Amino acid sequence: MAWAHEVGVRIIPQAGNTGLVGGQVPLHGDEVILSISRLTGKRAVDVRAGNMVLNAGTTLEEAHTIADEAGMLFPLYIASQGSARIGGVLGSNAGGVQVLAYGNARELCLGVEAVMADGTLYQGLNALKKDNTGYDLKDLFVGSEGTLGIITAATLKLFPKPAAHETALLNVASPDDALTLFSTLRARAGTTLTAFEIMPRIGFDFQLKHGMLSQDPSADISPWYVLAELSVPQGVAEGGLAAALEAAFETGLVTNGVIAESLAQREMLWLAREQMSEVQSREGASIKHDVSVPVAAVPELIARGMEAALKVAPGIRPVPFGHLGDGNIHFNFSQPEGADPKVFMAGAYAVHDAIYEIVLALGGSVSAEHGIGQLKTALLAKVKDPVALAMMRSIKSALDPKGILNPGKVLG
Amino acid sequence: MAWAHEVGVRIIPQAGNTGLVGGQVPLHGDEVILSISRLTGKRAVDVRAGNMVLNAGTTLEEAHTIADEAGMLFPLYIASQGSARIGGVLGSNAGGVQVLAYGNARELCLGVEAVMADGTLYQGLNALKKDNTGYDLKDLFVGSEGTLGIITAATLKLFPKPAAHETALLNVASPDDALTLFSTLRARAGTTLTAFEIMPRIGFDFQLKHGMLSQDPSADISPWYVLAELSVPQGVAEGGLAAALEAAFETGLVTNGVIAESLAQREMLWLAREQMSEVQSREGASIKHDVSVPVAAVPELIARGMEAALKVAPGIRPVPFGHLGDGNIHFNFSQPEGADPKVFMAGAYAVHDAIYEIVLALGGSVSAEHGIGQLKTALLAKVKDPVALAMMRSIKSALDPKGILNPGKVLG
Repeated sequence: MAWAHEVGVRIIPQAGNTGLVGGQVPLHGDEVILSISRLTGKRAVDVRAGNMVLNAGTTLEEAHTIADEAGMLFPLYIASQGSARIGGVLGSNAGGVQVLAYGNARELCLGVEAVMADGTLYQGLNALKKDNTGYDLKDLFVGSEGTLGIITAATLKLFPKPAAHETALLNVASPDDALTLFSTLRARAGTTLTAFEIMPRIGFDFQLKHGMLSQDPSADISPWYVLAELSVPQGVAEGGLAAALEAAFETGLVTNGVIAESLAQREMLWLAREQMSEVQSREGASIKHDVSVPVAAVPELIARGMEAALKVAPGIRPVPFGHLGDGNIHFNFSQPEGADPKVFMAGAYAVHDAIYEIVLALGGSVSAEHGIGQLKTALLAKVKDPVALAMMRSIKSALDPKGILNPGKVLG
Repeated sequence: MAWAHEVGVRIIPQAGNTGLVGGQVPLHGDEVILSISRLTGKRAVDVRAGNMVLNAGTTLEEAHTIADEAGMLFPLYIASQGSARIGGVLGSNAGGVQVLAYGNARELCLGVEAVMADGTLYQGLNALKKDNTGYDLKDLFVGSEGTLGIITAATLKLFPKPAAHETALLNVASPDDALTLFSTLRARAGTTLTAFEIMPRIGFDFQLKHGMLSQDPSADISPWYVLAELSVPQGVAEGGLAAALEAAFETGLVTNGVIAESLAQREMLWLAREQMSEVQSREGASIKHDVSVPVAAVPELIARGMEAALKVAPGIRPVPFGHLGDGNIHFNFSQPEGADPKVFMAGAYAVHDAIYEIVLALGGSVSAEHGIGQLKTALLAKVKDPVALAMMRSIKSALDPKGILNPGKVLG
């Protein structure tokens, strides 16, 4: 980086190359890609303190293994974890299915080591939970998508492994009922509620049709489902989920459901959730959004979004699913059955516009998890608070005055 | 601020004026103090979403009441909460006794509204848990001690109220045994362990001597004590603390203890903890430090710190206590009995130097909770990573080029 800074060569930091918004791939064509994939290995694991220090090229899956071997838990789960590396997970502030209880990448990171644009080394592998000696620089690096520095190592939080999981797939009539159920479960289970996902029936139908599930994971047909999971700490009696759901069953808030009775069944329920996006490619062309709104606005987002999309693209098949407990919905659509994919995709922008308009009207975010990269720079400039944009440009200029780190990404 | 920016008047933002490092009081003598104390009141409380939006002049105690009235919990507790205001709590990234489970002010804050040095308004009252649209500006404002912007409102996390607390004051032989106990309890109780504080016997003796406690809170005399508390979610059976402590009693890790059997007893145990620093003023002069080290290094910090202080100030009486679970010890000392306070305080720097040297050698922080203000600017310049300092100065210049916001604070 010191050399690149001196001669003015533009650098694109790249980790596992699994990013979904083009942040890690060339934009101009004259950039040098700097891969961190060889920076593998762990530097330290401290069970007592509840943290580990890993080099940034470590894959997320390896990170899980390192934690597990120490008898601990690193609770960040995304589909690409076999390839995604810690440097990219942090650079993009990845989320995943357990953000509800454990937080996102930023919240799971205690400190970073990073190489600055001018080649100096920022040494902030700080395992301290409490340190008020100046500005919070760690949280600037995380989620900066390689534009402020190259993360080379990180200190990550470890948690006690739960003694058990209680997992249920529950039938609900609507997203609104799902939201009511969420409030109830959260009040009852507190921080032991570690996942709360919503899914539409069509997602299971797709997976069954294409042989991606050996059997229907649900108790019976329902327009919507909730996958809820409690992580039971050691020393706490199991049965909390069933107890918490009793009233919901009695009042009809939940119309039916299954509680996993084995590890295999739990894995099957999660597989049905994890394959929701992937299965769409087997049903033709698709249009996808990664958005968030305040949790209470999720039912309205889904209702208005489906209505607006059907208006601009009659016959479009909505497949909205995701982290209801975080307000983050992967608002996806599949093409109408039998339609010409090219014709369908020609109308994609109208669907994007319709969805983003609703998201913004509800005070939401046009990129909940995936970041800006190069694909959403124009969108960001259009929708972001101008004072925030001005601050970000000032900070970028201050930390990379020559503009050599991942130029054109995020801020365009 | 727009006016001040135009004419170049220096502004000191002030909240509850309870800061302990002089960040909110004049340094040069020509600054105008801008108080936010009239920006009171709540803007919104959203129980479903688990957050509330408060104006920055709201006191922390009022914030607790607002949460409580909504049936929720805002779990940030510091001794000054009757006077401290949200703007200052966030500006200083306050910690407190429940950081262990709930996090510090930064982690409890979802978004802020802030006035920039040039008078523009940053609108980031973002209740979204997941939003990857650019850099993390919120976490820059929090803990910036009024040098990057003036926080005028904030969105704060709310949590379900626990159904019950299980609180115990436990006798342990040493900080090392306390640390072992912490690991055990944390593994057993997970996120339900919401407080783990260590205290020396001398602190109780002081309080009893000066009539600040009606009775000895402990089971019997022990060199050290741990105050441990579980917050039991609804639907979970009580008794988890007693169960988790069984083995500790059997092995002698805990030599005796009391588990609170009433709300009054719980309050009494906490009072004994909360009065630890205050009581020192009744025993003459005192020297205080707010430091943190990696959790596993706390016993070494205490042992080496006591030894080093006694060497430079024979007869000094150590009163170290604090958030063992966070690695944050208020490493306080009282003057020798009968000594001349002036003579004792003349030797304060030698004690400071000795303690900070050990803290830094252990990879710790010289200001865990209280911040830098004006009192610790020289110390910060001496001990902080120079690359980090350079980044902070660049960011400060970028966001306040005229240097009118709280000049001289933090970065000197």
